[in-house]
Amino acid sequence: MTADEQHIASAFDRDLEAIQAKIMKMGGLVEAAILDAAQSLETRDEELAEQVRKGDKAIDALEEMINEDAARLIALRAPTAGDLRIVLSVMKISSNLERIGDYAKNMAKRTSILAQMSPINGSQAALRRMAREVNEMLKDALDAYIQRDAVKAADVIQRDQDVDQMYNALFREFLTFMMEDPRNITACMHLHFMAKNTERMGDHVTSICEQVIYLVTGETPDEARPKGDKTSTDATFSPQA
Amino acid sequence: MTADEQHIASAFDRDLEAIQAKIMKMGGLVEAAILDAAQSLETRDEELAEQVRKGDKAIDALEEMINEDAARLIALRAPTAGDLRIVLSVMKISSNLERIGDYAKNMAKRTSILAQMSPINGSQAALRRMAREVNEMLKDALDAYIQRDAVKAADVIQRDQDVDQMYNALFREFLTFMMEDPRNITACMHLHFMAKNTERMGDHVTSICEQVIYLVTGETPDEARPKGDKTSTDATFSPQA
Repeated sequence: MTADEQHIASAFDRDLEAIQAKIMKMGGLVEAAILDAAQSLETRDEELAEQVRKGDKAIDALEEMINEDAARLIALRAPTAGDLRIVLSVMKISSNLERIGDYAKNMAKRTSILAQMSPINGSQAALRRMAREVNEMLKDALDAYIQRDAVKAADVIQRDQDVDQMYNALFREFLTFMMEDPRNITACMHLHFMAKNTERMGDHVTSICEQVIYLVTGETPDEARPKGDKTSTDATFSPQA
Repeated sequence: MTADEQHIASAFDRDLEAIQAKIMKMGGLVEAAILDAAQSLETRDEELAEQVRKGDKAIDALEEMINEDAARLIALRAPTAGDLRIVLSVMKISSNLERIGDYAKNMAKRTSILAQMSPINGSQAALRRMAREVNEMLKDALDAYIQRDAVKAADVIQRDQDVDQMYNALFREFLTFMMEDPRNITACMHLHFMAKNTERMGDHVTSICEQVIYLVTGETPDEARPKGDKTSTDATFSPQA
């Protein structure tokens, strides 16, 4: 490697580090949004919910900055295949984070309408547990990314099954509540959306982990990863069951 | 421009055209998946639904190929800022198409369980109208992309409001059906999911159109684009209303 090539290589690393710092900042904002959205529901804190909704703008702005920085980095440094893969993964991860932020914002939107209805026995707390689990997974996924730790990433993917199970349990619960008392229907529809949003957040965390595994091993994780939301195909979710 | 530069430029164009041909192929598969998913619901055609579910693999494979081709194109041709923007937009559009395909697959999954329940008065037909509208929007969005037609893209974005309105109407309808008769609850929960999935497809078509506008004008369309799903904030969706 000539001195000149080395100079180019380290300029790439420096630029990449700056982008990764933005990813971590974005991750921090998204983690907070997940917890705040779930907490605002449980404590009926409309002000906190409003804060989550407004905070999503900062998350979106970071994604845009990361995309621009990444495009500039590609254009300027013409990275090799391996380095290019890293830059592309950064763009994918920021897009996953943006989507998780969106789900948190959507959850927070429903807090104000749910605050006007009688709470549904225990569901808010269950939703918060689910959100906390997703939050922990996201933290670990971003750690795995920074440390290029494929084992940690694979572990997080496994944990997504717990989130899916929590979702399945909540879905059954909501059906039961709605059938017991039609006055529960509207609240349960909204709560169900929030549960589904949280379950989808888990899918996006999984997708981040798949990027990490791809970066480290060069291979996409096994296609046949277990899909945990059984409510779309499982016939036992019928009222007769 | 030297002869050598010209050679590089047209090599870029040739590679880009090959990628864009894959985008169009992917678009065709996704368009068919949307219509088939909605039709399989209305005609209770489980075989067609199964076909949609299986067909999603081809869509996913195309997205992966497009991403690889785009990365190779960037690495090989080191495109200028403007060309780079086009390549990045191709990746974003293929990711939007993949997500729409996913929603169609999820819809098709619910067909088998819904086929076992009594149909909900008129909802299947309403869902199919909504799917047909999204399908038309997608066709026009891809035309706008190929023709670099920002006006057409802006028109499609406007039409997404109709889809949002159809969704809002269906949401109210499902609430009513569920309150009238608890035996409708499970079917309505599934149908509601399908309606929400279709509404989200429209959002992804909008996102494709935003890419087109960005490509042509260099500007992101007005941030304040109207959000049509009012069910998350509108208090009139309570059973008292």
